[in-house]
This record gives sequence, structure tokens and C-alpha cells, in this order.
Amino acid sequence: MAATDLSAADLLPLVSQLNAEYARAIDDDRLEDWPGFFVERCVYKITSADNHRKGLPVGVIYADSRGMLHDRVAALREANIYERQSYRHLVGLPAIRGEDDAAVRAETPFLVVRIMRDGRMDLFATGRYLDTLVEDAGALRFRERIVVCDSSRIDTLLAIPL
Amino acid sequence: MAATDLSAADLLPLVSQLNAEYARAIDDDRLEDWPGFFVERCVYKITSADNHRKGLPVGVIYADSRGMLHDRVAALREANIYERQSYRHLVGLPAIRGEDDAAVRAETPFLVVRIMRDGRMDLFATGRYLDTLVEDAGALRFRERIVVCDSSRIDTLLAIPL
Amino acid sequence: MAATDLSAADLLPLVSQLNAEYARAIDDDRLEDWPGFFVERCVYKITSADNHRKGLPVGVIYADSRGMLHDRVAALREANIYERQSYRHLVGLPAIRGEDDAAVRAETPFLVVRIMRDGRMDLFATGRYLDTLVEDAGALRFRERIVVCDSSRIDTLLAIPL
Repeated sequence: MAATDLSAADLLPLVSQLNAEYARAIDDDRLEDWPGFFVERCVYKITSADNHRKGLPVGVIYADSRGMLHDRVAALREANIYERQSYRHLVGLPAIRGEDDAAVRAETPFLVVRIMRDGRMDLFATGRYLDTLVEDAGALRFRERIVVCDSSRIDTLLAIPL
Repeated sequence: MAATDLSAADLLPLVSQLNAEYARAIDDDRLEDWPGFFVERCVYKITSADNHRKGLPVGVIYADSRGMLHDRVAALREANIYERQSYRHLVGLPAIRGEDDAAVRAETPFLVVRIMRDGRMDLFATGRYLDTLVEDAGALRFRERIVVCDSSRIDTLLAIPL
Repeated sequence: MAATDLSAADLLPLVSQLNAEYARAIDDDRLEDWPGFFVERCVYKITSADNHRKGLPVGVIYADSRGMLHDRVAALREANIYERQSYRHLVGLPAIRGEDDAAVRAETPFLVVRIMRDGRMDLFATGRYLDTLVEDAGALRFRERIVVCDSSRIDTLLAIPL
């Protein structure tokens, strides 16, 4: 099955499942599984809506290979700066944006709540995922995931992937 | 294809896509696209759960044609009162409520976060969409969308559509 | 149809609909409908992520039959302690976790907003549903729903089901 042989209605459950599993991996603190959602030569970046609109360079996180994502997880594990909180992703309904050259584009809103060790909860981030997905070794994977945060006040100590 | 020839499981991806695109149009500030999600003779209103339960007249917004929706967008553009914030809709899973006279009824929860220009985020609104959907010129469109906000404290300067 | 004859992509709309209807019943205050989402011999419990991880006994709510769920609703109606607020569930995309012995396992994130009578809204709970679903009298029902709240600070007067 090539992803591109499928209609938007067929793709929706596949893209939904991918998003659900991606969010679970992060919220379950299985960060080592996170790079596996991407193809080897991928783009992952976190930016703000303002910077994205103005075409400004990414200020927060940029990676262009699965290896860089693994490195980031290793650094996070070493720094261990996020131990005192957990996160909960609520991923909205994906909008399937069409297909070109054997890839599927999707745009999906998200909201992340941060839960402090003392039980307090706050809105940590909202935004949208701008994704390019391809079939890779029998699974749908991200060739590109651009995380556009609505707020420009992104925590510079941002630890977890979004 | 008539919408009513489809089962709830078949309709779910179509209704989900419509909701996803609707929310995107608003959050991307493409308000001019918003009336296009409705049929020409439509009903759009925003009310509170209390007023809806008591059958009281709508207090916030009421429109009964696509033209009125266009007028509202034009007024918003002129007033330009919402420039200092952006919004993020998280739309939940639609519950397909059945079909009658060639229309589909669906009920879908939503949550809207407001992002201020300085980066602060707050819960702006929660509630549910009570929708009647019909097939119109090859697409699923709203014949009626009643936006029932959970809170009675709806911002009277409410600018954006919900 | 046995639930287990279906693929994850086929199951997703069914599991989504079940979750959507479950959340609607609670948020519409139709608590009497809530036990009907479970099979007769079921498990329903609410716990915290910490307790769940450590395998500690459930601290909040435990029921192992539909009858106990009915009893709980009756007690809530009598106590009437939650009259002054309403709730809005936002249920995320379910991750279908596979099937064994004629049952489907799914994991679904949730967020609940509480709306006070004066209109204030706050984040009430986030977490995930760990579900085992079976086909029962022609419908998909919960054989087990473990509600794992992210925060350990769960309101001890917790009134509504989650």
C-alpha cells in the first residue's frame, strides 16, 4: 500500500493512529521511542506562529535526521531537568491536506497540559503540527513535522518534544 | 452520494474533516472562508448552556443566512478588535446523532484557548456544537450550527466565530 | 460482528463513537445512562498515575459491577454536591492497542474542564483511559475502564464519573 493510493477518509484513521501513538510515547516518558516515528532523513522543528509567519529562522529546536532526535533524547536523559513534571497531549482532529510526490500532508492542532509534581496543572502549549508523512517500511512516518506554537513565549528550557 | 446513504462509521471521517477544516479556517484567521462551511439558508447561533436549556432567546450571535455571516466577518475586519490575540480550537470526537430528511445530526465538544500577544494563554470557551449537516454541491455543509457555550460568562465583545 | 474481526482502522470509528457518547452522557448530566456503557461484570476505577505506576491500591473510586455504578449515581443524586458546576470532557484520539481473547484494548487521553456557576473555568483533570472493550448485545461496551489521572491531587469530593 502506498499512502498516496488512499483517500482522505481512508487516511484519517491512519494519521489519527500515528498522532495518538506519538503523543502516548511522549506522555508515557518513552522518549527513546520518539525518533522511531520519523524517517531517517527527516525534519523536526519547533517554532512560534510569529516566526513561522515571518519566515524567520527557527529559534527553539531543529533536527534534520533521526540521529539528531536520538541525541536530543540522550541529552534530555542526562540533564534530567524535566523530572518534576509530566505532560498530557490532547491532539485534535487532523486535517488531511492532500498529497504530492508520494507523501501525505496533514495539519493537526494540539494542546499540552503540564502537571507539576505537587498536582498543579497549567496550559503549557497550544499550536499545530504541519506534517509531511510517507510510507516507510510498512508504516506511516513523519518526513517532516513542524511544530508551530501559538505563543511566542516558549519555555527556553523546553525539555520534552512536542 | 447523499449523506444519508452513509452509516455513522462512514460519516465520522467526513464530519471530522469538516470540523477540522472549520477550526483551521478560524484559527488561521481566514475568516472570509468561514461562511463557505454553511449552506446559503443556514442558522448559526451562539448561546449559553443555561439559555439553551431554558429555551431562552439567543443572547450572543444569531445569523440565518450565509450573507449575514459574511457581513459579520466584514464588521469584524473593520472593527479589528481582536488583533491582539489568537485562538486555538481543540475539537473533540463528534457523536453522530442520526439522520432525518436527508440531513445528518452531529454533536461535537470543543475547547478554545486564547493566546494573548504577550504569550499568555487562557481557557476562552468550552461547549458543544449542535449541528445539522447536509450535502450541498458535493460537500458536507452546515445547515445549522448551534454553539452552546458551557459558561454563561461569554465575552460580550466576542469577536471571532466559535 | 465480533469486535475482534475488525482491524485497528475499522475499530477506530467505533471506539471513537463510544468515547464520544460516554463523554456526552456525563457532560449532559445524564448520569443514569452512564452504567449502560459497561458490561454487567465490569471494572471501573479512578486512580492516579503515581499509584498506577507503583501498583498501589486505588485510592479514589472502584466498582466491579454495573450495579455498583448505578449505586454510585444514586448516591451522587442524593448528595447533589455537584450542582454548582458543570464539566466538559475533551477526549483525544484513541490508540487501539490490539486485541486478545475477543476483547479490544484501547488507550485514550482526556482533559476535563470544570465550569463554575459564576462562569469561571478551570482545568479539572487530565489523564488517560485504559480500556478493555467487548461486544455485548450488539454494542461495544467497557469490560474495564481504568481512569489514570495525571495529577495526584484528585479532588476527594470528586463527584462526577470521569
